[in-house]
Order: sequence, then C-alpha cells, then structure tokens
Amino acid sequence: MRHPGSTVERQAIEQPSLDIDALLAPSVRNALAALKGGAPLLAGMARYHLGEVDARFESTGDGRVHRGKQIRPTLAILCCVAAGGAAEDAAPLAAALELLHNFTLIHDDVQDQSPHRRHRPTVWSLWGVGQAINAGDALFAAAHLPMYRLVSTHPASLVLRLVEAFDRMTIEIVRGQTLDLTFEGRDDVTPDGYLAMIEGKTAAIVRYAAWAGALLGGASEPTADRFAAFGLALGLGFQVRDDALGIWGALDATGKAPADDIRRRKQSLPILILRERLEPAIRAEVDALYARSPVGEEGVTRVLDLLARSGVRDEVEARVSQYHDEARTALLSAGRQESSGAGEQLQALVDRLAGRPG
Amino acid sequence: MRHPGSTVERQAIEQPSLDIDALLAPSVRNALAALKGGAPLLAGMARYHLGEVDARFESTGDGRVHRGKQIRPTLAILCCVAAGGAAEDAAPLAAALELLHNFTLIHDDVQDQSPHRRHRPTVWSLWGVGQAINAGDALFAAAHLPMYRLVSTHPASLVLRLVEAFDRMTIEIVRGQTLDLTFEGRDDVTPDGYLAMIEGKTAAIVRYAAWAGALLGGASEPTADRFAAFGLALGLGFQVRDDALGIWGALDATGKAPADDIRRRKQSLPILILRERLEPAIRAEVDALYARSPVGEEGVTRVLDLLARSGVRDEVEARVSQYHDEARTALLSAGRQESSGAGEQLQALVDRLAGRPG
Repeated sequence: MRHPGSTVERQAIEQPSLDIDALLAPSVRNALAALKGGAPLLAGMARYHLGEVDARFESTGDGRVHRGKQIRPTLAILCCVAAGGAAEDAAPLAAALELLHNFTLIHDDVQDQSPHRRHRPTVWSLWGVGQAINAGDALFAAAHLPMYRLVSTHPASLVLRLVEAFDRMTIEIVRGQTLDLTFEGRDDVTPDGYLAMIEGKTAAIVRYAAWAGALLGGASEPTADRFAAFGLALGLGFQVRDDALGIWGALDATGKAPADDIRRRKQSLPILILRERLEPAIRAEVDALYARSPVGEEGVTRVLDLLARSGVRDEVEARVSQYHDEARTALLSAGRQESSGAGEQLQALVDRLAGRPG
Repeated sequence: MRHPGSTVERQAIEQPSLDIDALLAPSVRNALAALKGGAPLLAGMARYHLGEVDARFESTGDGRVHRGKQIRPTLAILCCVAAGGAAEDAAPLAAALELLHNFTLIHDDVQDQSPHRRHRPTVWSLWGVGQAINAGDALFAAAHLPMYRLVSTHPASLVLRLVEAFDRMTIEIVRGQTLDLTFEGRDDVTPDGYLAMIEGKTAAIVRYAAWAGALLGGASEPTADRFAAFGLALGLGFQVRDDALGIWGALDATGKAPADDIRRRKQSLPILILRERLEPAIRAEVDALYARSPVGEEGVTRVLDLLARSGVRDEVEARVSQYHDEARTALLSAGRQESSGAGEQLQALVDRLAGRPG
C-alpha cells in the first residue's frame, strides 16, 4: 500500500515569514504532557515518532531533522490569517492537526509493515505492533486536547463544532485507509475508486485544515466553504502529483529512484489509468508483471513505455494542473479580508505544490 | 495478557427498571451512521463487533446474545439519576462509553491475538490486523459523537469539560494497556504495579462513568468527586474479584474451568501476591512452572496448594471486600438528591459485583 503525500512532503514548503515550530510548540508540549506518568514508554514512543527523542528517549536536539514538513498546520494557520485572524488563534488547531496526522502515520506504518519513516526505524519495528497501536491510540486522544484550549479565544459553541468536525474528518481518513487496504492485491480498482480513497486518506485533513483555520480567523460560513473547496483541491492535487513523481520524478527531487512506484508495484493513479486504456492482451501482460515482486528492470522499462504511448503522463499532469487551478480559483473566490500577505503565501504554496516555481 | 473485567461481565447485572438498550440505541445508531459510505467494511466491522450483524453483515436480530453486559453505560445512567437528573440526560454519555469500551476491546484483541470474543471470532481474526486497527480507530472517533449531542440539554462549557476528560480518561486506559503489555514475560511485576495498571486499564472508565454521569445529573463538584471515588473503588474491586474468579471461580459461575488463569499463566493479582510471599526456592519453582505453556495439571494443583497455604485467597478476598466497602461508603457520602431508587440500585449493583446476593 502506498503512503500518500510522502513524496511531496519531502520537498520542503518553507514559509519564511511564519515560524510554525514556535507556534506549535506550546500546544504540542501540553498535549504530550498528558501522556506522561505510569508508563514512560507511552510518551516516549510518541516523542520518538515526532522526532523529539531517539529510541533511548534522549533528546535529538531540536528534532527538525526527523520531523515532517508540517503542511497541514501551515495551511491551518495561513487560512486563519487569510480570513482575517491572527496566526496565534489557529495555533492549537494546527497542533491538533499535526498530532492527528502523526497518529495516522504510526498506525499506517503498522498496517504497511513499513520499516522506516523519516530515515529512522518505525515505532512498531522498535516496540512491536501492540505497543505501536497504543502509541497511535494515545496520540489520537491527545490530538483532541489542544482543540479544547480554543475556548480561551473563541465561543464554546464554535469550538464544539470544530471538534466534532475533527472527529468526523478522522473517520473519513480511516475510511480512506480501509479502502486502501481493500485495494491491495485487487486488479479491479478504477481511477474513480482510487480518487475516492485519497479524498478520505489524504485530502480530508487538508480540507478540514483550511476550513477550520478560516472559521477561527472569523470567516463567514460561505467563505469557510470556499476555503474547504480550496483545501480539498489542494489535497487531491498534491496526492496525484505525488503519484506522478513516484513514476517520473527525478532522483534528486524526490529521494526516490525514478519509477520506484513501478518497481514496488504501487497501484497509484497512473497505473490505474493505464490499465483502463490497454487492450485486454497487453493489460494481461501488465497484470502478470505486477503479480511479481518486485518488478524487474525490463518490466519497469515496458511499463514506462506503455505509459508514454498511452498518453497517461499527459493525462496525470493535466489532472494535477486542474486540481491546482481549482485550488487557486477557490482561494481567489474566498477573497482577502487582510493585508498580512497570507493570501499571497497560500497562492505561492499552491504554486510550489503544483511544481511551478513561485 | 489478561482481559480485565471479562469474568464479572459474564455475570449479568440486570437492571429491571432500566432499559439500557432502549436508552443507548438512538445515540449508538447515529454514531455508527457516521461510519457509513465509501467503505461498507468499516461500518460492517464495527457493527459486527457490537453484535448487530454477523460476519456477512446480516442482522443478528436484536444482537443481545453477542453484546457485553453494558456495565459502564448502566453506571453512567444510574449515577446521573442518583444525582437528581433524568436517565435520558446521560444517554449520549452512556452510548459514548459503550462505543469507547468496544474500541478498546477491538484493539485489545489484536494485541492479545485473541481468537474469540463473546463466543464469536474477533474482528482481526476475520479481517486481519490492519483492518481491525481501522475498525478500532473509527469506533474511537465515533465514540466522541454522542458527547457533542449533550449540548441540547447542558451548557456548552460543561460539555467541553466532559469531552476533554473523556479523552484524558482514554489516555489512562491506553497507559494501562501499555503497562500491561510491558508486564508480559516479566517476573518482577509487583502487586502495586499491577494495581496501577488496572487503575488505568479497567477502573479509569468506571470512575469517569460515575463522575460524568453525576455531573450531567446536576451534582456539585464535591458530590461528583464522591461519585468518582465510588467508580474508582468499584472498578478496582470488580477487576480484583475477576482475578479471584479466574482461579477459584466455579465453572458454572464464570464460564471458565476452575484455575483457568493458572493454566493460562496469567499474571493476575493472586499470583503476584503469592510470588512476593514465597521463599526464593519455592518462588523459583513457581517461575519454572510459569515458564512452560500451558501449565499442566500437576502444576495447577501445586500452585493452588501454595495459594491456600500462603493465605493468598483470604488476602485477595479481603481486598475485594475493602474495595466494595469503599465504593459503598463513597456512594453513601454522595448523598441522595432523589427518590427514584437509583441510589438503591447502585448499592444493589455494588452488592452483586461484590458477589453478595442483593
């Protein structure tokens, strides 16, 4: 099973004017404090996964090396500011999203039996499946805690609405993950089925980040809905671009060998589109190639050739452009209630995620 | 690893005057509706675990056969009524607790590799570890949803407080579970260490059920704290009694062969107390017995003999009585703000859980 979003995340999305780490730190620290006491292993596993400590629970310094790119918290904060709020208003939301995302990664790694994440052994590979399940469960519970702090700056009724939507969004993620696991080993997954899966697994949290950030920034309901549309298109766009990079990305840009996703037989969007376009005999040939683990050099060359001849690369790149155009349009339609430059930063973020130099 | 609470739960705690099923049904149904759509497997696994459907997702009728004894929701509702509220006020809380408890059971079964629960195959044994993790994650998220409905009858600030405490209580459960897994295969677990583990794993949710139920019923802070003390003592008491039943319980009362917990080498409280009391040579003999899987008939007889000669049974039974006395005292100190009979029903519940005919 693939882990959506991974390639894009490896390309840093620096926001020079925004110190995300400083904004998140107090809320993350408070949430993790709730895991302490009684079983040092529990807090230790969570802090290890977040890059704060090594496998002996000793500090890794600032931990930046082993941390993800924090796309979701960055979006939540920029959308809050773009809607007219202060960055600090959305900091607890941003922390909650980062913790939630990391809970899903800990359980994903168990489900995929992935040995490494962010260049280190995964939690389950160090402490076993049972304890990794515990680490994820505890991080999910702890992810809620910063949300409750929002009552110090926002009405309790809004906070309750955002927390409920947080749980419903998590269900969407889990639904996507459930679909993804059911796709394994099947040869009848359609491009539309795949897109429905990534809408839950990858895009739901991006959509929520933009929507909830905007509401905390004071957006009206219709404006928040436009931010949601922006987040959804952005989330889908960056997953589909990640799929393209997994096949055509250059080694230096993605950290993957070119065509790595073919070698590892990932059922990503390009392959699903290809299978739909092939006549039965050639489709059977591709299916036979994908029945072997891993696909050899000759097979990789053959699939790359079929992808090129079937126009799949153009199709995938057109879809990426379309998602990013939708994201840009939704963002422009949301208007700008501020002069902080957050709207421009969001547009620049879309451009970078779309692979165009800002 | 043992599954605390299992034996006691098999002894029905009927509350003739309270139709728990009818009170829970609407909230549970609404929460499960959030799991539908996109991946029928997700809602299907949850409903299977809850006893509503079979493994082909067809209705099991009223599902009562495969359902737990609903101790936690019963307590939440009785404490709400005892504090002066209506049973309906606590129904969403009760549903949330039942869903949360079942989430922990789904993940527990994965961690313990338990093939059966409530006389049926477990979720992981039917759909695999990865999907069972998803089923638990989704049920945990869905468990929050009934809590948000409490705003229709209670102030948003109280609801936020109860939901936050719900997440903190879940962290306590996971902490207990983390400790429990670390105990496996160790020979240095102390009775106190074990009690700290079950305080999280078993008693935290019972404590919360009583406390939150009382607050929803209108209890003052000091009164709610007394209900919390009642719940904590009750939760610890029923786990320790479960441990006693696992060794000395008769087959007809518990569904277990006598001394089953010795056969299965469970590190329950009686064994931990015994090990502390034995002189080194005999302790080494017991350790050697417990190093074999399973313990044979001769070994079982030997351990039962050592338990009797060391006075462990008396000690364990004294502790059970003490917890139940504490529970009774805390309940009496909470006073009675009502004439519904809920206080009497709670006392009767304590008596039944303490093994004394009400």
